Amino acid sequence: MILRDPIHGLVAFETEEEAIVPALIEAREVQRLRRIRQLGLTHLSYPGADHTRFSHAIGTAHVMKRFIERMRAIHHALPYWQRLTTERARDALAAALLHDIGHGPLSHLFEAALPHGPSHEDYTVRIVSDPTTEVHQILKRYDASLPTRVAELVRGRHPLAYLARAVSGTFDVDRCDYLLRDAHFTGVGYGTFDLDWLLRSFRFGAAATDADAPTLAIDGAKGLPAIESFILARLFMFQQVYFHKAGRASEFMMTRLLTRAHAVLSDGTRLPAAPPALVSIAREGDASLAEYLALDDNVIMTSLQAWRDASDPLIADLSRRLQARHLFKTYELFGDQRERRDEALARAREVASAAGMDPDEYVGLDAASDVPFDDGNDSLTVVFPRGTPRKPGDVSFLLGRLRGEKLERVRLVFAPELREAIVKALAT
Amino acid sequence: MILRDPIHGLVAFETEEEAIVPALIEAREVQRLRRIRQLGLTHLSYPGADHTRFSHAIGTAHVMKRFIERMRAIHHALPYWQRLTTERARDALAAALLHDIGHGPLSHLFEAALPHGPSHEDYTVRIVSDPTTEVHQILKRYDASLPTRVAELVRGRHPLAYLARAVSGTFDVDRCDYLLRDAHFTGVGYGTFDLDWLLRSFRFGAAATDADAPTLAIDGAKGLPAIESFILARLFMFQQVYFHKAGRASEFMMTRLLTRAHAVLSDGTRLPAAPPALVSIAREGDASLAEYLALDDNVIMTSLQAWRDASDPLIADLSRRLQARHLFKTYELFGDQRERRDEALARAREVASAAGMDPDEYVGLDAASDVPFDDGNDSLTVVFPRGTPRKPGDVSFLLGRLRGEKLERVRLVFAPELREAIVKALAT
Amino acid sequence: MILRDPIHGLVAFETEEEAIVPALIEAREVQRLRRIRQLGLTHLSYPGADHTRFSHAIGTAHVMKRFIERMRAIHHALPYWQRLTTERARDALAAALLHDIGHGPLSHLFEAALPHGPSHEDYTVRIVSDPTTEVHQILKRYDASLPTRVAELVRGRHPLAYLARAVSGTFDVDRCDYLLRDAHFTGVGYGTFDLDWLLRSFRFGAAATDADAPTLAIDGAKGLPAIESFILARLFMFQQVYFHKAGRASEFMMTRLLTRAHAVLSDGTRLPAAPPALVSIAREGDASLAEYLALDDNVIMTSLQAWRDASDPLIADLSRRLQARHLFKTYELFGDQRERRDEALARAREVASAAGMDPDEYVGLDAASDVPFDDGNDSLTVVFPRGTPRKPGDVSFLLGRLRGEKLERVRLVFAPELREAIVKALAT
Amino acid sequence: MILRDPIHGLVAFETEEEAIVPALIEAREVQRLRRIRQLGLTHLSYPGADHTRFSHAIGTAHVMKRFIERMRAIHHALPYWQRLTTERARDALAAALLHDIGHGPLSHLFEAALPHGPSHEDYTVRIVSDPTTEVHQILKRYDASLPTRVAELVRGRHPLAYLARAVSGTFDVDRCDYLLRDAHFTGVGYGTFDLDWLLRSFRFGAAATDADAPTLAIDGAKGLPAIESFILARLFMFQQVYFHKAGRASEFMMTRLLTRAHAVLSDGTRLPAAPPALVSIAREGDASLAEYLALDDNVIMTSLQAWRDASDPLIADLSRRLQARHLFKTYELFGDQRERRDEALARAREVASAAGMDPDEYVGLDAASDVPFDDGNDSLTVVFPRGTPRKPGDVSFLLGRLRGEKLERVRLVFAPELREAIVKALAT
Repeated sequence: MILRDPIHGLVAFETEEEAIVPALIEAREVQRLRRIRQLGLTHLSYPGADHTRFSHAIGTAHVMKRFIERMRAIHHALPYWQRLTTERARDALAAALLHDIGHGPLSHLFEAALPHGPSHEDYTVRIVSDPTTEVHQILKRYDASLPTRVAELVRGRHPLAYLARAVSGTFDVDRCDYLLRDAHFTGVGYGTFDLDWLLRSFRFGAAATDADAPTLAIDGAKGLPAIESFILARLFMFQQVYFHKAGRASEFMMTRLLTRAHAVLSDGTRLPAAPPALVSIAREGDASLAEYLALDDNVIMTSLQAWRDASDPLIADLSRRLQARHLFKTYELFGDQRERRDEALARAREVASAAGMDPDEYVGLDAASDVPFDDGNDSLTVVFPRGTPRKPGDVSFLLGRLRGEKLERVRLVFAPELREAIVKALAT
Repeated sequence: MILRDPIHGLVAFETEEEAIVPALIEAREVQRLRRIRQLGLTHLSYPGADHTRFSHAIGTAHVMKRFIERMRAIHHALPYWQRLTTERARDALAAALLHDIGHGPLSHLFEAALPHGPSHEDYTVRIVSDPTTEVHQILKRYDASLPTRVAELVRGRHPLAYLARAVSGTFDVDRCDYLLRDAHFTGVGYGTFDLDWLLRSFRFGAAATDADAPTLAIDGAKGLPAIESFILARLFMFQQVYFHKAGRASEFMMTRLLTRAHAVLSDGTRLPAAPPALVSIAREGDASLAEYLALDDNVIMTSLQAWRDASDPLIADLSRRLQARHLFKTYELFGDQRERRDEALARAREVASAAGMDPDEYVGLDAASDVPFDDGNDSLTVVFPRGTPRKPGDVSFLLGRLRGEKLERVRLVFAPELREAIVKALAT
Repeated sequence: MILRDPIHGLVAFETEEEAIVPALIEAREVQRLRRIRQLGLTHLSYPGADHTRFSHAIGTAHVMKRFIERMRAIHHALPYWQRLTTERARDALAAALLHDIGHGPLSHLFEAALPHGPSHEDYTVRIVSDPTTEVHQILKRYDASLPTRVAELVRGRHPLAYLARAVSGTFDVDRCDYLLRDAHFTGVGYGTFDLDWLLRSFRFGAAATDADAPTLAIDGAKGLPAIESFILARLFMFQQVYFHKAGRASEFMMTRLLTRAHAVLSDGTRLPAAPPALVSIAREGDASLAEYLALDDNVIMTSLQAWRDASDPLIADLSRRLQARHLFKTYELFGDQRERRDEALARAREVASAAGMDPDEYVGLDAASDVPFDDGNDSLTVVFPRGTPRKPGDVSFLLGRLRGEKLERVRLVFAPELREAIVKALAT
Repeated sequence: MILRDPIHGLVAFETEEEAIVPALIEAREVQRLRRIRQLGLTHLSYPGADHTRFSHAIGTAHVMKRFIERMRAIHHALPYWQRLTTERARDALAAALLHDIGHGPLSHLFEAALPHGPSHEDYTVRIVSDPTTEVHQILKRYDASLPTRVAELVRGRHPLAYLARAVSGTFDVDRCDYLLRDAHFTGVGYGTFDLDWLLRSFRFGAAATDADAPTLAIDGAKGLPAIESFILARLFMFQQVYFHKAGRASEFMMTRLLTRAHAVLSDGTRLPAAPPALVSIAREGDASLAEYLALDDNVIMTSLQAWRDASDPLIADLSRRLQARHLFKTYELFGDQRERRDEALARAREVASAAGMDPDEYVGLDAASDVPFDDGNDSLTVVFPRGTPRKPGDVSFLLGRLRGEKLERVRLVFAPELREAIVKALAT
């Protein structure tokens, strides 16, 4: 299998060891990812962002392939039992491809809207483990315990610490692909970093004790700019895309809509065109795997279309607004206002009430935050030709300044017709 | 309105003259293009090709904006009555944005499958002209005759010949955008050309007679590589993407499926989840505009899902194959075999019959052709500081060799289970 | 004049207003910049870095042209007397092209080696002002006072504050070009920023008082990432290129060499192949303009070749090493060692003495520092649709963390044969 | 050794097998390439084109490294005795790095000006073979017969045909690097092709007879666009850069100048600042290797500077014009005029004589030609899963149209003061 990818150029899975990737790609559950956009509703603000979880899954497997190549180029520093056998490499490729297979429609949105349901990671594990899925059957064809091993790896658990972290860690293959991919498809030029150089910068550092294996580290003489730019690329993507005001507003609306649908269905009310999975979750607390796998972006959009005429006025209104892309507006709180966010929210709610609109539904506070860099135990160390391993924040001018700092965007979100009055209420 | 586009970078419509673009973008009929992929089923072979007609529409308006800027930089060579007034510029921007608004689901596919129905150009004109559409209402707000003028422009008719050709001609703004966009999203590196240089190469040549206006031409000293690379970019895209075997095979299948659904519905048979537009076209020869506008990729995909269990065996089988991405295979005919294509088809049909499969449905001949460059009357002339205008094919080494040459790809298309037998039958 | 530039693509100076740029490019003093590498000896570490001050001068004029276009797009916010007339635009283009014309060979190196001589800015002013230069004569042809106005502008002085800062300020056209150019030719992928977006982000903010003109500012809603990435691009270039250890080591050597040549010549000793400018500076404290303009990289390299056999042993030795690219080595000081740098230097000097090498010449301490971002009075303010102008550091997560922070690299520099002993001496 | 290259990104020679590359890079004769521009005087028309033979040499070795990797990925199709051992790989890397080491100043120019002297290929072989060069000594350190083997390889002779062609053939590593490099530094966007895809497309085809080895071929299913775009990239570079009018005119002048200097020196006349190599060639028909290696661009430019005041009026005049970049003009001949080029030349010569200028020196005819693609025996074949190998021109639409076609640019070249009169003379 060889194909063109806008991010990585030539992507090929042609060897015996890599054959598991094209095999799994044919599975129905992987093909379903073609119908789930990587960035939910972000395409409403960035018209290029129509890329799907499917191309991301392939890209992630490709980055894992390159990671494996790099590990083998430096594995002379490892004891034999720590090196990547063909079996381990195959496990890792499968886990990379499948790591996001449990995502619901609109990526994180569905999950966020139904907070008491299982997470997408739970669904990933279910899909890999359930004997009825094609993914499970393909994995099992290789080795009866492969589904279990992949399920563990997806959760970031593996006897080889460096491999576990490559699936789930600060510089994991998932992030390596999605940062580059999201930057490319949105057209945000800042979100890039040098993947070649990052991979090349990996070294095995000294083991903590004789019984331990050497740990994966970054070459201090060459690798600092690679990790600095990775951290910055991620920071820029958060600032520009993941925390974008229109994206957050549409997520707020979709969350309210699904929450309301959930409530209505729990009451036993009938809602036309409700996806069976949503009905089951509302009524029984969970959906069958088949129901869940029948969900995708199309299904939700088809529901939205039908719900425009729902009898529940909130469902009808939010569906209409979302389909017409009439999004809620935001008002960002800075400095003092951010400190007294509850007060700001209270004022906005009063405005809504005065206008005869339900403040629980048409006004909200959206606080998004992220710590772009932290030097925790999870983080890679930096090694120099001479001297002891150091923390990235100790040797990088930039990371030293960012360490532990929290990026926070706090906004009021509200229906556009309330805008003028809310701005006025907050100004006084 | 200012946004990021992966192809053009910063895209802005901020002036008075350009305000019509953001206004039209809000129209329901333009928003519908978000749900129609630019390249139909090509994403099955190129995983990045999920981009939609919506981003292409914006990109086309942007190229028109740049074209207008360039015309104004060189319009001193024109008599006053040939220059671009604000009204003409607005017309052109609207036409660029709306040129593809009549596309059905999967872009060209729906149209190709129902050959006796109206074309997408017809629908574009209908949408622009029909008083019930938001697009029409917005246009009319500017000027009562604007819908008519835009409808004319979309068809390539305008008193200013150079403007008409910019909407529909060899180097029109539509092609300028889609070549770059399709190349970017598929990851095919070859399909690029230098838009800056192409625009900069435009000149106004001498008028044929005193009564005529000067015609748009290419600067021979600077512009040849720009048009050469444009023609080559297009040729590469045909070879690599538009004529790609998997794409052609899936189009073949979808065409068969829709044709069959059309036939079944014409007979009065009920087909679950058939889009109302399809029912109307089958039974009454045409669909209402509202029905047509309710069509998009999601709708077709939802039908496909439902049709997996249709009572008509062909519909059920093709729907299942398409949804699972089990595509038909192709066998390309070269040289002698291409000349005797009917014989090759006959043999393949025999194989199908022998295998108990309907040769009308499971075997076909797919001939795709294009003339990458022709020096017809439509083509731009090339002007030099001294001397008479020349045809591009007379002054370009490359275009001289390509002039009038036909690129043709001829393939048998068939169900994969017939592959071995067909290859064998053709080898003898 | 229209040409291709690897950084900016199509570069054109074709209008009446821009005609001064191609006119000045023909001047002998501008052509001399073809023989001066932009980055001195950096090409010894980055093999692509052979680009010259000449291409940078053209690129800077191009950025100024774009800056002027942007100012005119937003100048409705300015009183008439603050807008850019054709004369002011011409002055600005000339100043942009000529801003670096006074550079000596190897760019900053020659200047650094002769600290008591005039700076390159002084020479720029001299060249512009001296009636014997072609540059002066061309300027004068336009307007008798143009040389004076350009000389003022080059020094960052102009009645229009926003124009003065565009020539010499935090985000000036010089930096805009050299950051992109140096990043491109070295191949350092990090040093980029979005010039389109930066230009587009400029706004005119409110005037401080009624008598004042509005000041140039950055649009807070759109422009923060543009200035953040500019600051980061510059930081990365300092870390990766401008403070690169091999570059600093070769500069150290060249400085020692020129200083020594200066001393030898001051004593009246003859040094074969010494450029006349160097002789005059050594003996009379200054060189004539003609002598200075005869200097370029070739001249210095030809001297180096001849000096390999100089009777002065230090001159001969350093010339040989530099020509063979046998560079001095460095040892970077971190943490505690950086605090006690004098002690480290003392130890290294002892090593040299013990090895019989002159510690003044073969050992040195190189401290390079820069404050990547400061929110001084010079800095642009950030304006929001509502509310008062803010400092970038107050509204940007990233700039807030970098504000006033000093990047410092401190290294011992020494002849390679001393390396082992110095490393050992420092370890104890 | 690991470094950044603007063309290939991360370039590393770190394994045992590759260690010969960093070793050779330190050799004085390789370092000399830093002082020879890759494109001679092309930087006069393309301000970015200051790149040197040194960076090209490293780039070529990098492409060879990648070629070797690819060969090893597919060498299972080869008998053992045809595979790349470590020794063969080392030979190939050395030959790639050194293939151009014999170039004189201004790359091809010096050689063209002295047509009876040795070619740059001869000098390359001399440098590799001469026991006094550092290059020779380094090679010999590995293996006494290595200099001989490298000299053979550089001439395209090697027992492994596919390796010989990789050094010197239609798709050799030299071309792969210089096409990309020259396109990048000139900023000509067209001259690119997909190196990854080209390498990946290599296959070993069937052997002609049982005794033969399989030959290197291109995968017909995937590789055609790679070779098509390679051929086109080369064609574009010829059209845009290598045959550029200003470049050809400056080469014409430099050739005349060096020829005249050669003649003057042959007569025994003294010419100040003449490089010893030129004196020896003029007087003795050849220069010593040491003299030749002392030549570089700087040396020629220093001579030019001195020759401005030469007593020979032609030498003085051409030196002055070249240094001031006052280049000769060109007049391209098309169609009929091209057929009767001698007549055009005769007319131009008459104009010169009438103006009192020596027609032998100030007027000339410059005919540049190239066959962009030919399907000779040297060319790679194209192989398909089924069926016999085919010639590229038989299976590629584009190459079929270009096969054997000759690109020709014919121009009169003359001093600018003759321009008007010559244009007039030709018009009648």
